[in-house]
Amino acid sequence: MRNLVVQKFGGTSVADTDKIKNVADVILKEKANGNDVVVVVSAMGHTTDHLVKLAHEINPNPSARELDMLMSTGECVSMSLLTMALQAKGHKAISFNAAQIGIITENVHTKARIIDIKTDKLNESLSEGNIIVIAGFQGVTEEGEITTLGRGGSDTSAVAIASALDAKRCDIYTDVEGVYTTDPRVVPNASRLDEISYDEMLELAHAGANVLHPRSVETAKQYSMPLRVRSTFKNENMGTLILGVEDMEINKPVAGVAADLSQVRVVVCDIPDTPGEAATLFSALAKENISVDMIIQSYARKVSKTNDIAFTINKEDFDKAKEVLEVVQKQLNAGEVSYNDNIAKISIIGAGMIDRPGIASTMFKTLADNGINIRMISTSEIKISCLINKEDAQRAVKALHEVFNLGSDEIAEVKGTLPDV
Amino acid sequence: MRNLVVQKFGGTSVADTDKIKNVADVILKEKANGNDVVVVVSAMGHTTDHLVKLAHEINPNPSARELDMLMSTGECVSMSLLTMALQAKGHKAISFNAAQIGIITENVHTKARIIDIKTDKLNESLSEGNIIVIAGFQGVTEEGEITTLGRGGSDTSAVAIASALDAKRCDIYTDVEGVYTTDPRVVPNASRLDEISYDEMLELAHAGANVLHPRSVETAKQYSMPLRVRSTFKNENMGTLILGVEDMEINKPVAGVAADLSQVRVVVCDIPDTPGEAATLFSALAKENISVDMIIQSYARKVSKTNDIAFTINKEDFDKAKEVLEVVQKQLNAGEVSYNDNIAKISIIGAGMIDRPGIASTMFKTLADNGINIRMISTSEIKISCLINKEDAQRAVKALHEVFNLGSDEIAEVKGTLPDV
Repeated sequence: MRNLVVQKFGGTSVADTDKIKNVADVILKEKANGNDVVVVVSAMGHTTDHLVKLAHEINPNPSARELDMLMSTGECVSMSLLTMALQAKGHKAISFNAAQIGIITENVHTKARIIDIKTDKLNESLSEGNIIVIAGFQGVTEEGEITTLGRGGSDTSAVAIASALDAKRCDIYTDVEGVYTTDPRVVPNASRLDEISYDEMLELAHAGANVLHPRSVETAKQYSMPLRVRSTFKNENMGTLILGVEDMEINKPVAGVAADLSQVRVVVCDIPDTPGEAATLFSALAKENISVDMIIQSYARKVSKTNDIAFTINKEDFDKAKEVLEVVQKQLNAGEVSYNDNIAKISIIGAGMIDRPGIASTMFKTLADNGINIRMISTSEIKISCLINKEDAQRAVKALHEVFNLGSDEIAEVKGTLPDV
Repeated sequence: MRNLVVQKFGGTSVADTDKIKNVADVILKEKANGNDVVVVVSAMGHTTDHLVKLAHEINPNPSARELDMLMSTGECVSMSLLTMALQAKGHKAISFNAAQIGIITENVHTKARIIDIKTDKLNESLSEGNIIVIAGFQGVTEEGEITTLGRGGSDTSAVAIASALDAKRCDIYTDVEGVYTTDPRVVPNASRLDEISYDEMLELAHAGANVLHPRSVETAKQYSMPLRVRSTFKNENMGTLILGVEDMEINKPVAGVAADLSQVRVVVCDIPDTPGEAATLFSALAKENISVDMIIQSYARKVSKTNDIAFTINKEDFDKAKEVLEVVQKQLNAGEVSYNDNIAKISIIGAGMIDRPGIASTMFKTLADNGINIRMISTSEIKISCLINKEDAQRAVKALHEVFNLGSDEIAEVKGTLPDV
C-alpha cells in the first residue's frame, strides 16, 4: 500500500466544462493532502447514450465490436479535457486511454471483464510527478481490439486500477453524498452511513439503492480495496466508506432499509406435483437470461396433488418472461399464470443481524402493527426482504427506519438518482 | 499496383447519419466495380471545431498532446458509424484507428508527419473480404503517443495509405464536383477540369482554390499516386484527376484562373540602401512564422539612397506582422510602413505556359484593356500572379477566363467552399 488514491468521477460530475474545472479542484485538494492521485473518468453527461442512439439510427443491430469502438470515444474526450483543466491550474497531468496503459480484458465486446492491468507506464508517469487521468469503461484485448466493460464499467475500472497500483483507497465521486440508511426522499431524517460492509452494500444495491454498480463492489471486495462514495459537488463530508466487515465496528444490527419497486410477482398455479417441475420452469427462464428473485413454493395440495410456485422478476424482463411462461405452462400442464406489478420489495440489510433472530420478528411485527400485509418473505444472511403492496411501501420504509433506530437528527438534502418509492 | 482504391470522405460528407448511409452507398458502388476498398474518414461535420472550442473553454493554452488526444476522437466516431452503415447494407466491414494499424508519425503534436504505415493488419483484413474504414487525421508515435496531422490531415492520411498499399488511385470525395478552371460563382461557365497536374493543383491551391490541401497534393506527387477529386453527393461524373504532368495531354497553355482576396499588401518605405536590410526584414517575419508571398523591391533612389520594399502577407497574420514591423522599422531606421487590404491577387496557372512567353503579355494586355491597374507582378514556372484592386477582381477573372478560352458550354452548379471573389 502506498500514498496513492484513485478517484473516479461519473458522467454528471464532468457534464460540462465548468463542472470539469470543479473536478480539477477536487483532485487538487486530494493531491494537497500529500497523496499521489490517479483519476478515472466517465464520458461527459449523456454522451454514451447519444452515441448509441446514432449507432441505432444507422444500424438497428450494430456489431458489438464497432459499438465498442464508438462508445470508447466518450471517455477519451472527458479525460483529455480534465487533464487540460489540471494543467490550467498549474499542475503536471497526463491522460491515457486503456490501450496506452494496457487495461487488458477478455476478448468479449460491450461487457468484457478485466484480466490484467499493466502498471509500468502508470508508475513511470507517477514518478515524474503527474496526476494521471484514465478513460474509464474501456479496455483492450491482447490483440489490440478495443472493448468496453458494460454497466458500471467506469466504477469497475477505478477499483481494478486501484488494486493494480496497490492504492490505499478508491474514491467514487458521484452526485449523492454517500450511502444512506434509506431513501431520504421517503424518510427525511435518513442518515448517511459512515461505513458499510461490501456485503451490505451489495445487498443494498441489489435491493434498489443504485449508488454503485454491484460489480464494482464485488471487485472491491475481491481485492479488499476500501471504496469511498462521496459527492463531487458537496464534499465537505467524507461520504461513506465501504470495506470488509472485519474492519468495521458494528454498532447496529441493521444498516439500512431499501425499497425496490421494479419487480413483478408471477404465480404459476396448479403445477402437477412431480419431480423436476420447478427445474423445468426456472431453467426455461434462465435460458432467456431472466433473473428470478424471491421464490416461494407452497406445499403440495393433498387432493389435487398440485403446487403453486410464486416468484418475482424484474419489470424489464416482463414481456420476455410472458412468452417463456406461455410455453412452460403447456409443457407442465399447469393452471393459470398470474402477474402482479402492484408490489414493493422492502428489505432490511445489516451484517449485524447475523445470528440475531429477533431482527426478523421485529420486522414482521412492525409491518403487522402498521396494518401492512406480507405476501412473500425471503432472507439471506444479512438481508430480510418482504413483498408487500406498492401503496404500503412508504409507510413500511418509515416504520422500519424508525424501529431500527436509523434516523439522524438532521434532515438530509438529496439530489440525484436514488430510486422512487 | 493492385485492384485497390482508397477513398476519403470529408466532414461534410459524413455530417449526419443519413449522409453516412449515403457514403456507404458510394463505397459499395466502387466495391461493385470489382475493386477492394479502403476508406479514410474525417470527423462528422464541425466536430473537431467543437472539441477545440471545449478545450479552449477549459484552458486558453491547452497542451498539444492533450489536444491530439481530444481531437483524434472525432474520426473514431465517424469511422465506427460508417462501418455500421456498411454492415447494415450486408457487407463485411471493419474499422481501425491509427494506433491499431500503425500509422507511425514523428513525435510532434498537432502537425505530425507520417513516417511509416504498417500494412500487415490491413492486408490481412482485406484478404478476409473486409471493406476497411480508417480514422483520418491521426497517427501514433513509436512510443504509442497519439498525434494528429494538422490541416488537410485526412487527405494526407488517405494519400499515404494509398501509397503504402500500392493502390491504383486515391479518390477524395468532397462537396464540390472537381477542380474548376475558376470559381464558378464568378464565371458561371467555368468548366470542370478532367485532368490537372500535381504542380498546377499546388499552384491553384496556394492561389486560393481550397479544394485540396497542398500537403496532400505534395504527398501524392512524391509517390506518383493519382488523386481524384469528386463529389460525394453528385457522383455521376468522375471529377478531376490529378496526376503527373508526364501522364497528361496538355491542350491549353492555361489550366485555370484563381483569385485570392485574403492578402494584405505591406510597403516599407525609405529603407537605407545598405546590404542585409532585406534579410533583417524578412528574417524577423519568418521568426514569427509569417509567410510572405509576393515581394518587390524598387531600385535604390539616387538622391536619398533608400529603397521601398513591398510584399504581401495573409490577413490572419496582419496583427502579428504589425508588431514585428514596428520593431523592424526602428531597427532599420526606415520610413513609413503602409498597409492595404483592398487588394486581390489574380493568378493564371498552367503547366502548358512553360517556355511560352506570350502568355504573360496576353495577361497584362487583357487587364490593361479592361482598365485594370496592375500594382505588383510575380511569376513562377507555371503561374503568373498580378496584384490588383479588390473591386476589379471579378472583372479580371472573367476577362482572363475568356481570353484563355477556359469556359465550357454548360453553366456550372456549385456548392461548398470555393473562395469568395
